[in-house]
Amino acid sequence: MSVGKNKNGTVNRSDVPKAVVSRLSLYLRELQHLIREGNETISSSGLGIRLGFSDAQVRKDLAYFGQFGHPGVGYRCQELVQAIKRILGTDQEWVVALIGIGNLGRALLGYHGFASQGFRLAAAFDSDPTKVGQQFEGLLVESMDLLEQRIKEHGVTLGLIATPANYAQETADRLVSAGVTGILNFAPITLNLPDSVGLVAVDLATELEQLSFAVASNQDLFQESPDSQAEE
Amino acid sequence: MSVGKNKNGTVNRSDVPKAVVSRLSLYLRELQHLIREGNETISSSGLGIRLGFSDAQVRKDLAYFGQFGHPGVGYRCQELVQAIKRILGTDQEWVVALIGIGNLGRALLGYHGFASQGFRLAAAFDSDPTKVGQQFEGLLVESMDLLEQRIKEHGVTLGLIATPANYAQETADRLVSAGVTGILNFAPITLNLPDSVGLVAVDLATELEQLSFAVASNQDLFQESPDSQAEE
Repeated sequence: MSVGKNKNGTVNRSDVPKAVVSRLSLYLRELQHLIREGNETISSSGLGIRLGFSDAQVRKDLAYFGQFGHPGVGYRCQELVQAIKRILGTDQEWVVALIGIGNLGRALLGYHGFASQGFRLAAAFDSDPTKVGQQFEGLLVESMDLLEQRIKEHGVTLGLIATPANYAQETADRLVSAGVTGILNFAPITLNLPDSVGLVAVDLATELEQLSFAVASNQDLFQESPDSQAEE
Repeated sequence: MSVGKNKNGTVNRSDVPKAVVSRLSLYLRELQHLIREGNETISSSGLGIRLGFSDAQVRKDLAYFGQFGHPGVGYRCQELVQAIKRILGTDQEWVVALIGIGNLGRALLGYHGFASQGFRLAAAFDSDPTKVGQQFEGLLVESMDLLEQRIKEHGVTLGLIATPANYAQETADRLVSAGVTGILNFAPITLNLPDSVGLVAVDLATELEQLSFAVASNQDLFQESPDSQAEE
């Protein structure tokens, strides 16, 4: 990391690889476990061992964002939790709206990991009149007609799209017009959004394809001889 | 890509970045759309435009795996679909077991994208006696006592873990002992598995944290002056 650094020695956020940001989430979760178990400090190798990474990997990942270790002490767990939350942007509460209350939407409503990591589900919407007015996990499902109004009232900044694919782009456009700045898309379609809007896509079939690719690659590894046949 | 190539000019599968494998899934889905719309061929720029990538990106991604375009024609959609399926390992059917029939497990059972992309859910398990014996989406929930037996009977090769975090490692160990070669983990915990087992993790809180990181970074982008304050 000798290029693209800011004055303070950290790199620009847009230059940080996604895999590093993912691992920050893992470090955060593990540090929260450590604190619950009564630990005040942890070394980079201690943190790495618990997650299956090398100590060098842990130090390199964190070095993107600054200097967090203390000589002879390691990391102070609480301090590093606060630092990672600040980096991830979860030191503030994010107000979230969920659109689409099918199976997946209901699963998302029931997922307690959101709340514990700083994401508050404030509103839920569906276009199906038989769902509107029902409560799931204590949250009232409202009509899509109220989307823009409720987003403003609740100060919603993030939207979770769990609609069928053919409604996802229209839903995203309405969320963005209403002022939402980030979208987590579960619909199996690629959304077109302005660059100013954050977008993370979770496509379950894609995740399974990543898995089958990994498994098929492992099988190649174990089955191929040095003169293995070429893929055409 | 001048290093690490096989004799046939493609790179080793283990050297292919994860982002490239993800994009293969997007190309596959878009090509399937194109075929349904009656298209027989598509150019790299045509495919790129539909997904928001450059034509160079499309060609570079596919070049990891071989030469698929035809001069003056572009890609033949059916041919490229078959090639990508072969690369992803989804030209064969994968038999999948689901463990954990809570909200998320039920959402996964209802997700039709799995079947259409070559993943067949053959068995579902839960340790809760009130769930065992029930049917969801036509699939019978069975006791965890039958896990190993059913995996062998059905020839299950992939496991989806949607259990609470504290059961996930034990479940994964049992799946691996029973012969499963790949695991898609939805439980919010890091699994330790042998290197020979493929592992993809989907942590919903992590996805949201990636989103908040992206949104916070965008805000930095729009709010920071050239002499912006340093992060400490």
